[in-house]
Amino acid sequence: MNMNEIIIKKRNGGKLTEEEIRWFVSEYTAGNIPDYQASALLMAIYFSKMDEEETFALTDAMRTSGDVVDLSAIKGIKVDKHSTGGVGDKVTLVVGPLAAACGVPIAKMSGRGLGFTGGTVDKLESIPGFKTTLEPEEFYKQVEDIGIAIIGQSGHIAPADKKLYALRDVTGTIENLSLISSSIMSKKLAAGSDAIILDVKCGKGAFMENQEKAEELAARMCKIGNAAGKRTVAVITDMNQPLGRAVGNSLEVFEAYDTLKGQGPADITEISLHIAGIMIYLGGKADTPEEGAAKAKEAMETGTALAKFRELVVAQGGSLEMFDYHDASGSVPVADYQEELIADRDGYIASIDAQMIGLCSQRTGAGRKVKEDDIDPFAGVLLFKKVGDEVKKGDRLAMFYSSEEKKLKDTVLEAGGKENGAEGEAFVISAKKPEIPALIKTTIGL
Amino acid sequence: MNMNEIIIKKRNGGKLTEEEIRWFVSEYTAGNIPDYQASALLMAIYFSKMDEEETFALTDAMRTSGDVVDLSAIKGIKVDKHSTGGVGDKVTLVVGPLAAACGVPIAKMSGRGLGFTGGTVDKLESIPGFKTTLEPEEFYKQVEDIGIAIIGQSGHIAPADKKLYALRDVTGTIENLSLISSSIMSKKLAAGSDAIILDVKCGKGAFMENQEKAEELAARMCKIGNAAGKRTVAVITDMNQPLGRAVGNSLEVFEAYDTLKGQGPADITEISLHIAGIMIYLGGKADTPEEGAAKAKEAMETGTALAKFRELVVAQGGSLEMFDYHDASGSVPVADYQEELIADRDGYIASIDAQMIGLCSQRTGAGRKVKEDDIDPFAGVLLFKKVGDEVKKGDRLAMFYSSEEKKLKDTVLEAGGKENGAEGEAFVISAKKPEIPALIKTTIGL
Repeated sequence: MNMNEIIIKKRNGGKLTEEEIRWFVSEYTAGNIPDYQASALLMAIYFSKMDEEETFALTDAMRTSGDVVDLSAIKGIKVDKHSTGGVGDKVTLVVGPLAAACGVPIAKMSGRGLGFTGGTVDKLESIPGFKTTLEPEEFYKQVEDIGIAIIGQSGHIAPADKKLYALRDVTGTIENLSLISSSIMSKKLAAGSDAIILDVKCGKGAFMENQEKAEELAARMCKIGNAAGKRTVAVITDMNQPLGRAVGNSLEVFEAYDTLKGQGPADITEISLHIAGIMIYLGGKADTPEEGAAKAKEAMETGTALAKFRELVVAQGGSLEMFDYHDASGSVPVADYQEELIADRDGYIASIDAQMIGLCSQRTGAGRKVKEDDIDPFAGVLLFKKVGDEVKKGDRLAMFYSSEEKKLKDTVLEAGGKENGAEGEAFVISAKKPEIPALIKTTIGL
Repeated sequence: MNMNEIIIKKRNGGKLTEEEIRWFVSEYTAGNIPDYQASALLMAIYFSKMDEEETFALTDAMRTSGDVVDLSAIKGIKVDKHSTGGVGDKVTLVVGPLAAACGVPIAKMSGRGLGFTGGTVDKLESIPGFKTTLEPEEFYKQVEDIGIAIIGQSGHIAPADKKLYALRDVTGTIENLSLISSSIMSKKLAAGSDAIILDVKCGKGAFMENQEKAEELAARMCKIGNAAGKRTVAVITDMNQPLGRAVGNSLEVFEAYDTLKGQGPADITEISLHIAGIMIYLGGKADTPEEGAAKAKEAMETGTALAKFRELVVAQGGSLEMFDYHDASGSVPVADYQEELIADRDGYIASIDAQMIGLCSQRTGAGRKVKEDDIDPFAGVLLFKKVGDEVKKGDRLAMFYSSEEKKLKDTVLEAGGKENGAEGEAFVISAKKPEIPALIKTTIGL
């Protein structure tokens, strides 16, 4: 095969054969096709698109480019959950214990990744002692014993996707339906679960700005998953403002903890019960998603979900001390320096720029810009107001936390804070109470 | 500036600023932008296109990326000539002496390049002793003394184009009007002449398959040249069959020599007089192109053009011995092995596949596949029949020459020859006499 001819074929709108796609993926991953030919092909795909068959082939070629996890040693229907990523998204930390408490085995491998905060694994590592690396046997045994384990993804899941994604990131070739969906699904399908629930975010703080595009992506991913023999369901959820009130690593763990106690923000509670309900249904522990959601709510109310979370922490070597202190005092550990953002007028919160809050969170040290960056577990942002809330001039809108004073000052200035208190650019205050968009837009694939 | 953002801007159909284009070209040439970002941008340009202003900026950025030749030391209007390349195109070897014989100073720098045969410089080097490297002072002096010098292009003309072209060649990004025209014109504009004549080939053996696309390319290049202050004219000529009868290096030098004697094939004679006429007109030595062509014809008939060619050879150290022998005997030096292609039926030559003859020429050793390849000066193809000629079964259609017997056999088989004589795939013989397409389609920019 000739790479230049494959590029030209796709450039001219041709359909690549499964053989061509497999050859490209394996030779590129092996280092036999240079980055400059791969990026030219990616840009040609951006413009000429790939059809479903090509997307299936690309997904499968990437899926099988590394380890394909075998979870068959664990009894029951294993359900995996994936979010396309949003600001303040700690839903995995809530739905894992909720579903496990209802009998669905959760054998979850999560990533770290770049972004506004760390990934699920980084968040869990803010718990002193929490180990996110387990041997496969330990991992299976823990799921058998307590019904849940959450570990870091092996470095060798879908290495082709890893290499291609890094290239797409710097060559303007991220935004293509086939490339996005195959990237996500290659990893999910390699992770060994029996069913998959996808949380596809839409809005200003998300990858997909509008609901239509989010639905298109969700539908494509469901098709890929189902074609590969795994029941796949997607929910489309709003990401115009941050999810919950906490953005950071430790801050989000505590918000998840409070949600499991039944004391979380309304949005996190709503979305977690909806997703956990579907997981419980897919896992065969409820006859309908609604029955699943009711079981999840019961687990929240009776404390079995919180107990499951605490069991998980202990099983993976983590200390419960800071949770106990939190239960007693209501306080959470934060980074050394803090700076507040104050409302400069009376009114209602019309919008909160999730993207900007996310970037501020990253800037405080809560997220990585490049993969070598360290995460500051106690940095981040707490929001005191959400869209629709009434505010008075002088009210605190948000608090930023960082271990570096200089970073903090710059961050708050970026978010729009001024010394004498000003309307932040991240927050827009209007005289009229705004309409609040629905959090859960639709569910696809049920 | 951020390369990824520039890629995305062009991908989304945006117009790049002159500053962005200059930054890209200089940083890429300096090695500060990786190939994989450059190829992604090139593919985005392929799809989103560049407008005239962007193309001018790209041309100028590449033009000034290396040496810009100053020919002002040479008196008179210097006219450069460029061909987009065809099979059997030895027109430069004819029009140079024709124009010089009519008083237009020819200070020509030519390339080697890859292709079916060598470049003009390779062809001249098939003359024993001919030097294609002169110091600038020697070069200027020779043009002053005898009115013509032809040397190899300095390695440092438009290095940005060289690097980008090599990348385009392996990333499916050759075929874009702005990229093609800026590539050609950046080199022509850096070469220091006052006016430029472009021979844009169209047809099966050319880069531009049809006349419409060739005209579009020609018009774009004329605009670029004129915008840069150099009078630029283009002729669109047919390249559906090889030009003339000789394809090779030494073989083409002798055909050019015969043409200068007034004994060349009709097509080479026609195109040479047309182009030389325009050069003489652009060089201020005739009031119209037609008058220029008449002067060129006179130079051919009176022998002053042939004398100019012989002067050129001597001035650059070449031996006239083989030309004298040719004048006396009619024979030309050829490679050791030869193989003929025979007609398998009576009829008329309906078509000759220029592309295939070109590839055969390359295979005999007359052209380079990669730039490290050696050229065999005496290898190549001689055509005994051209489109429209009547043939009888058993007539020789072509003779292939090579220094390697094995290469030769494979080549002739490729061209369609069989042991018992068969219609070659390269030649199509029909019962009816075909229409012969016009050689000179149109002239643009006069």
